[in-house]
Amino acid sequence: MLKTHNCGTLTKANVGETVTLNGWVQRRRDLGGVLFIDLRDRSGIVQIVFNPDFSGDALKIGDRARNEFVLAVSGKVVERDAETINTNLPTGEVEVQITEIEILNAAKNPPFFIEDGIEIDESLRLKYRYLDLRRPEMQKTLLLRSKAAKIFRDFLDEQGFIDVETPILTKSTPEGARDYLVPSRVHPGEFFALPQSPQIFKQLLMVGGIERYYQIARCFRDEDLRADRQPEFTQVDIETSFLSQDQLLGMMEQLMVRLFRETIGVEIPTPFQRITYADAMGKYGSDKPDLRFGLELIEMNDIVANSGVKVFASVIEKGGEVKCLNAKGCGTWSRKEIDDLGPFAARYGAKGLAWIQVKDGEFKGPIVKFFNEEEIAAIKERTGAEEGDLLLFSADNKKVVADVLGNLRLKIGRQLGLINDNEYKFAWVVDFPLLGYDEEAKRYVAEHHPFTRPNEDDVHFFDTDPGQIRAQAYDIVLNGYEVGGGSMRIYKRDVQEKMFNALGFTPEAAKEQFGFLLDAFEYGTPPHGGIAFGFDRLVMLLTGRTNLRETIAFPKTASATDLLSDAPSPVDPSQLDQLHIKLAKKAADDKNKAVIG
Amino acid sequence: MLKTHNCGTLTKANVGETVTLNGWVQRRRDLGGVLFIDLRDRSGIVQIVFNPDFSGDALKIGDRARNEFVLAVSGKVVERDAETINTNLPTGEVEVQITEIEILNAAKNPPFFIEDGIEIDESLRLKYRYLDLRRPEMQKTLLLRSKAAKIFRDFLDEQGFIDVETPILTKSTPEGARDYLVPSRVHPGEFFALPQSPQIFKQLLMVGGIERYYQIARCFRDEDLRADRQPEFTQVDIETSFLSQDQLLGMMEQLMVRLFRETIGVEIPTPFQRITYADAMGKYGSDKPDLRFGLELIEMNDIVANSGVKVFASVIEKGGEVKCLNAKGCGTWSRKEIDDLGPFAARYGAKGLAWIQVKDGEFKGPIVKFFNEEEIAAIKERTGAEEGDLLLFSADNKKVVADVLGNLRLKIGRQLGLINDNEYKFAWVVDFPLLGYDEEAKRYVAEHHPFTRPNEDDVHFFDTDPGQIRAQAYDIVLNGYEVGGGSMRIYKRDVQEKMFNALGFTPEAAKEQFGFLLDAFEYGTPPHGGIAFGFDRLVMLLTGRTNLRETIAFPKTASATDLLSDAPSPVDPSQLDQLHIKLAKKAADDKNKAVIG
Repeated sequence: MLKTHNCGTLTKANVGETVTLNGWVQRRRDLGGVLFIDLRDRSGIVQIVFNPDFSGDALKIGDRARNEFVLAVSGKVVERDAETINTNLPTGEVEVQITEIEILNAAKNPPFFIEDGIEIDESLRLKYRYLDLRRPEMQKTLLLRSKAAKIFRDFLDEQGFIDVETPILTKSTPEGARDYLVPSRVHPGEFFALPQSPQIFKQLLMVGGIERYYQIARCFRDEDLRADRQPEFTQVDIETSFLSQDQLLGMMEQLMVRLFRETIGVEIPTPFQRITYADAMGKYGSDKPDLRFGLELIEMNDIVANSGVKVFASVIEKGGEVKCLNAKGCGTWSRKEIDDLGPFAARYGAKGLAWIQVKDGEFKGPIVKFFNEEEIAAIKERTGAEEGDLLLFSADNKKVVADVLGNLRLKIGRQLGLINDNEYKFAWVVDFPLLGYDEEAKRYVAEHHPFTRPNEDDVHFFDTDPGQIRAQAYDIVLNGYEVGGGSMRIYKRDVQEKMFNALGFTPEAAKEQFGFLLDAFEYGTPPHGGIAFGFDRLVMLLTGRTNLRETIAFPKTASATDLLSDAPSPVDPSQLDQLHIKLAKKAADDKNKAVIG
Repeated sequence: MLKTHNCGTLTKANVGETVTLNGWVQRRRDLGGVLFIDLRDRSGIVQIVFNPDFSGDALKIGDRARNEFVLAVSGKVVERDAETINTNLPTGEVEVQITEIEILNAAKNPPFFIEDGIEIDESLRLKYRYLDLRRPEMQKTLLLRSKAAKIFRDFLDEQGFIDVETPILTKSTPEGARDYLVPSRVHPGEFFALPQSPQIFKQLLMVGGIERYYQIARCFRDEDLRADRQPEFTQVDIETSFLSQDQLLGMMEQLMVRLFRETIGVEIPTPFQRITYADAMGKYGSDKPDLRFGLELIEMNDIVANSGVKVFASVIEKGGEVKCLNAKGCGTWSRKEIDDLGPFAARYGAKGLAWIQVKDGEFKGPIVKFFNEEEIAAIKERTGAEEGDLLLFSADNKKVVADVLGNLRLKIGRQLGLINDNEYKFAWVVDFPLLGYDEEAKRYVAEHHPFTRPNEDDVHFFDTDPGQIRAQAYDIVLNGYEVGGGSMRIYKRDVQEKMFNALGFTPEAAKEQFGFLLDAFEYGTPPHGGIAFGFDRLVMLLTGRTNLRETIAFPKTASATDLLSDAPSPVDPSQLDQLHIKLAKKAADDKNKAVIG
């Protein structure tokens, strides 16, 4: 009894046809000897009917079916009576009168009901992921993910990109996040590393004349996990030769336009806004600003530096800054509502949160008395404060001010309903700093990686003020999320040497650390650059989810565990012998205890 | 100077246009002060000309370029003089008169020339893979590989398959080949394993109602490597629910038709031949027969059992067999030529190789005298031996006879020119045995895996003669290579129990070993089955290569080493500490010695 039709696609056009369906029992009802079953497959649900009038023995067999049993049934598609039409179901105008049935498989009662919007513990869903995946919203997500991958591939294929697979068993590199290691059986004491990204290989492919490369690549980072991190994740990895940054970014904008059009039917306008890193941090306190609303951070240093607010003056004297957020219309908040912002701000490092209410035509609040009239007027003008506004001040070093006000901006923006959930606001954040000064190591470190190309206008700063150099690096941000990033790469030897020099690497140290890539660069390296998109995150945003795990068929928990298969797990000691490794004493003791206990 | 055109695409249609090209110097010639450079990019080569008449300073700069320098050049496309047209080059009718040039990068002299058909040590090519990849044949291979992946995806997408990514960090399973292990930092003493295939996950996806799944998946086996194995390899992994074996195989045939049509323009006829495992072994001595030619193995037991050839009689008495190959036209071979087959046969286990020449109208050779007239006549009739033929006999157990004559068949077939290299002969090998008897363990073992569905007609053999059970398993073979394989899976609980019982597993042992999958099977498992194609091997056959490494951008050697990055490699001891492992003493000693020495 092989299926002739999919359940969810039957309509009035099929009336009169005899069909065979295969699927799962969504639910069953027995109404006075007539059995109704909602039968579900990937395409959806249709009602099938067993009636003594036409079902014969099939009714008796069908009666044994319970939720999630797998059935094969045959019967005739008929129109439903007008009063039993189900307008919530695409198939709601028809039902199938069953004449034959085979129970393909029985099922235990599942631990949760197979439907959307269930509110149960996520760990139960992960343990029974195979049941969770039957729910329509999970199936829709995986379908969209598959489609999104296809759109990426189709677009890049049309643009002449070659899909090249790079190794998963690679060499451990000392920089960056922690590597996952794989002991070698053939080479005792040696290890492969799982790639954090195909960065080195994609640059080698450019040296190899591939010109346009892409790969939907699995990457691995053994980091402490947060809600939006997975130990293995997927990125759409792209690298090109002979393109300018503008050409590459323009092409990627077209790619995003197509992705959003063909998955969720949203038209994204181009060109995307470009905002410098300095502006993003200055105006939004974030290098991934949510640009769906304004509520910008306002610089106040010049106005408040000499005011009677001592903490402002002292912060500015130490090179810090004072900034303000004008929370329009929040001037009517109660003292408690305002005070409640304090602990939130503290999470991001704020030692306090100064504020001014504009109420009854005047500034009110504990700090108002420390300003003179001129200062009040200047604040009013600068912030555009009006009746009913609430001004929030943060004073600290640049980083803390950005974190505090950037996050307050998001919180208040959402609270005030300034954010349109149906809007998709892309932007490029550009001109990232090339180098950051590491106070501990007392040296510059690469903000992106040591092969990131500096802005040509800034190369002279290598000799005078390396911190000033802007990188030809860019992130693509969407609604407050970084969904991708990349850079043009250094391809000239003299620039690379300046870069290593700035990083405090001797030529020997550079050779030691990046040997084979530097060797490769000697043999005619084309100008090249690329980008990588976070595929899991893009799918998350396309499906309106807030958790990466919802976009992955078999994700891991925050402690890097697969609750379904119970990986990782202890292995047979003989396996370790073959790999020339032993457990460290503590780990071995713990395992022993587990076995004994 | 961003490229406006690709080098290899310029034709007479472009004459008169001013173009900008970016590419590598393939070679340069200076003819009486005029400089000719063959400029190469991914699309091909075009000749560019620097002449004092029109090049100005560009000539001076161009003169500094050497092989593999990266250039950006601009100039006018002109027709070549009739006598300088190069018909070997698609661009051979034109050249570009250069007026502007920028040397984008210099290059050291490469260790080998960038052209097809170079005969140099493969290890040098692998060490400098980034240069090797510049060679047109490597670029063509990677391009075809990318295209082949696209065709798989397009076809499966059209058939309603969903591309689902399954984990790379999975659980170690005790059966099968050796796992690559990944120590966990978060869970001391525990390990992930890299998947040998997504088998368990794809079956879980069927339980999850995905119905049609595919993935171009990286798989890992820590096996001793042969020329045609890689520690990481790529398979096109496919699983379906609610399809019969015939439906699935028919769909896969259409997939192959499309793949071969759209990559190399070859039309593959359908349906593919189906040959049982028993017939394949019997007639061709192989479960992956090359069906482009006949030269079948001929059963001789009944004829020779009572002959005077004692070794034949004794082999048959012990349950072995005698088979014959009629090497048409080899009857004229010298005694030395025939004797030279001996060592070849010995490689496959032959203790000797008996033969009969048909020469001057009669049978000749050492064993002829042991046959009576009737036997001679019967041999003649059975083998169709004619003047000029050579009959080769193998007598041993079934396995050795198959190996010896199967391999002799291939050798002689090639020698006699029976194999058409431009023919692509697909077949399905079906009806594999479900179980094999392991003499050492004194029990049956699964030939495919423990979830392979038995032929329904044979289920009764579980109680009487499990070795007789045919599996619903199939391999797809092409020209003597297995390019894919799969099976329908068990989905009924009672059949699964019989299977475990036959394998000698108690219910507890089965639970211990396959726990979460068996749990999943309790909740309404649909009938399902699938297949996996060896993607590297298919690309190898499509590109006419004989080595899998030629199809992979960054392959590993037979000792699982990446010669380019020098992976695997020793790692920092602190990395091991974090992973709660230590080197076993010998490995640690070896590493120390390496550091000291």
